[in-house]
Amino acid sequence: MNQAASLAPFAAPFAEPAGSPIRELFPYLSRPGMISLAGGYPSPSLFDGEGLAQAAQQALAQGASALQYGATEGLAELREALAQQARERGMQAASGDILVTTGSQQAFDLLVRVLVEPGDTVLVEVPAYPATLQALRLAQAHIVPVPMDEHGLQTGALADLLAELPADQRPKLLYTVPNFSNPRGTLLAAERRQALVRLALQYGFRVVEDDPYGELRFDDASGVPQAMPPTVRAVGEQLAPAGSNPVVYLSSLSKTVAPALRVGWMLADAALLRRCTVAKQTADLCTSPLTQMVAACYLNSGRYPATVQRARQEYQRRMLALVQGLSTGADSGIRCARPAGGMFVWAELDRRIDPQKLFDAAVVQGVIYVPGKAFYPADPDLHTLRMSFAAPEVPQIEQAVQRLRTAAQQAAG
Amino acid sequence: MNQAASLAPFAAPFAEPAGSPIRELFPYLSRPGMISLAGGYPSPSLFDGEGLAQAAQQALAQGASALQYGATEGLAELREALAQQARERGMQAASGDILVTTGSQQAFDLLVRVLVEPGDTVLVEVPAYPATLQALRLAQAHIVPVPMDEHGLQTGALADLLAELPADQRPKLLYTVPNFSNPRGTLLAAERRQALVRLALQYGFRVVEDDPYGELRFDDASGVPQAMPPTVRAVGEQLAPAGSNPVVYLSSLSKTVAPALRVGWMLADAALLRRCTVAKQTADLCTSPLTQMVAACYLNSGRYPATVQRARQEYQRRMLALVQGLSTGADSGIRCARPAGGMFVWAELDRRIDPQKLFDAAVVQGVIYVPGKAFYPADPDLHTLRMSFAAPEVPQIEQAVQRLRTAAQQAAG
Repeated sequence: MNQAASLAPFAAPFAEPAGSPIRELFPYLSRPGMISLAGGYPSPSLFDGEGLAQAAQQALAQGASALQYGATEGLAELREALAQQARERGMQAASGDILVTTGSQQAFDLLVRVLVEPGDTVLVEVPAYPATLQALRLAQAHIVPVPMDEHGLQTGALADLLAELPADQRPKLLYTVPNFSNPRGTLLAAERRQALVRLALQYGFRVVEDDPYGELRFDDASGVPQAMPPTVRAVGEQLAPAGSNPVVYLSSLSKTVAPALRVGWMLADAALLRRCTVAKQTADLCTSPLTQMVAACYLNSGRYPATVQRARQEYQRRMLALVQGLSTGADSGIRCARPAGGMFVWAELDRRIDPQKLFDAAVVQGVIYVPGKAFYPADPDLHTLRMSFAAPEVPQIEQAVQRLRTAAQQAAG
Repeated sequence: MNQAASLAPFAAPFAEPAGSPIRELFPYLSRPGMISLAGGYPSPSLFDGEGLAQAAQQALAQGASALQYGATEGLAELREALAQQARERGMQAASGDILVTTGSQQAFDLLVRVLVEPGDTVLVEVPAYPATLQALRLAQAHIVPVPMDEHGLQTGALADLLAELPADQRPKLLYTVPNFSNPRGTLLAAERRQALVRLALQYGFRVVEDDPYGELRFDDASGVPQAMPPTVRAVGEQLAPAGSNPVVYLSSLSKTVAPALRVGWMLADAALLRRCTVAKQTADLCTSPLTQMVAACYLNSGRYPATVQRARQEYQRRMLALVQGLSTGADSGIRCARPAGGMFVWAELDRRIDPQKLFDAAVVQGVIYVPGKAFYPADPDLHTLRMSFAAPEVPQIEQAVQRLRTAAQQAAG
């Protein structure tokens, strides 16, 4: 053979891969005057720039250790600070139980690598974060949706579903965001956390508890901070035999400190952590020791609690502007519940509103959101949408509400 | 079913994964007085701490854009600076042709995800970087070694091997470090670069040209900087029809600026780049925009050329101390060629030296290196070893040479 051969093909999941459905909205964002409720970005006005600059200075003053390669597991200083966060959230944790990851996106990716083979069943609460669905699709997992209601994942429906799954479709893991889920904004009820752990133990699957938003709890209607049920991992500590907690806990500094640090973390059992560390050696050797050192200095500076408190208050104000704007006065046709924390409001559309017409009219009016179909692995409820109140300021949100109301009128049949 | 089920198993490649063979040496490093030639870390004394601190200050002064999420492809400022580096290395490159990765380790990982399915054939020059072999093992690739000599990968042997490969084992890609390879330190001869590209075109596989060390070229014996042959990708530009260059070029700032930035990069065709971007969305969303901004500010500060020049000179001094120390005077039994750049010396042992006895005696003497077997996917030549001269200072290297000589005498039969 001497003629040129055509280039070897891509791996099957990458033959014609779809990009992120949220990124497809990017072109609209640059339109003049557009108000975006689409992204999942935290508000830049809430970053503690001064505190982070001090932390960076402190980190760089440490010299080589902030510039050299670091251990795959993470810097000792940061692992200790994150274990402390875990303990404050009611979980048992030593620094050796923590794996630092390049954002919590990587933590989920490592779990998928270590646990999921093509065709394996993975349970996902639905509607779900699109990047989670994409990671599972690329891993050629068999995605089985678990329905949610206003109290989060429906464990009754999950029990039925598990009882009916054929033995060869035994799930490897279940993915949930129990605290202020993305996109639904729900808080998983305490008794459901217990039921979920019991089902995990009964059927032998792991629960991935992704908790980037738990710190962003609001005050309830009477001004009292939202009471938080124990984390699912803490429930696992109570219900599982010692050393066999089926719950893996993920969190991140992206929503509370700064996304650009790319610092996420995983709290899990030793066997799983060791395998995720081996996978991480291959994935990126280590998370930036420089940003890890900045994160450790920041967490140890004592500024974190006030920063989070400021975010809670401001996000609550923005959330109220959005939810009350759409819910009070004349019927907008866009029905949403008030989330108890987080960054997202999930809405259902009156059936007389055409979802595509609404989206088109909203773009013309100058407001954008994410149509609900992005959050379903299949069979989307098209009369849904996700709005993030995190990035725009209150006056912008008030304007966004007016534009949405106008668009909804235009899109109503 | 109501009793507890055992937990679902790990994915097959993670059932009992081996860790990095280099990391297994870590326990020896903490012994008092140990001199390590084992690691692949750059010298911390060569980091431009002052320049990086200025760059960090400048980056943080940009406010939100250095703290927020960034585009998966990388920050525009950095992609432009890296495209400039590619052009200075003789390749065609616009910023849109660059994907910023979390170290070049991630770049290879993304390529494996996008191209390799279990059982796919991947050609690897051997001896090879252990993390490359590990990534391919975890991807369940069929690794086919290509032999090297003092001029790098043997393209004659590769041609024979390709002619004999069954049609169903057509390779997806070939991995090579043409410039000062890890671990062999070789520079791939110019005519072999041509032959390699011709074979890639003939058989339809991609070439991964991993080039973290190319900037670290030494002066030759007459004091003239080592002449560099064109990069394999540049050869691909000449030989391949327009738009079908089979060579993917990877590089990194880890060896020349600082590993802790975790900034690597890929220069490739649009179809491959798009798929790697989709894979990266799942892997970690984006490389730290903070360290990207620091890297961009640093590269744009004008300090980079002097930093690299300092590293070249100092690494050359260290290399000479090692190679001349082992090669001149009484026969050490440890034979090594002088590399023309990079961070590594590859050595072959006299057959009368027992490799395991040498390692044990070296540890007792207080010097450590990486036994050659770590660099072979199978059938290792046990009478080989890798020494890195990058981290220790010259006096330490001189002491290491004496210790190695003593150990070799003790280990000779």
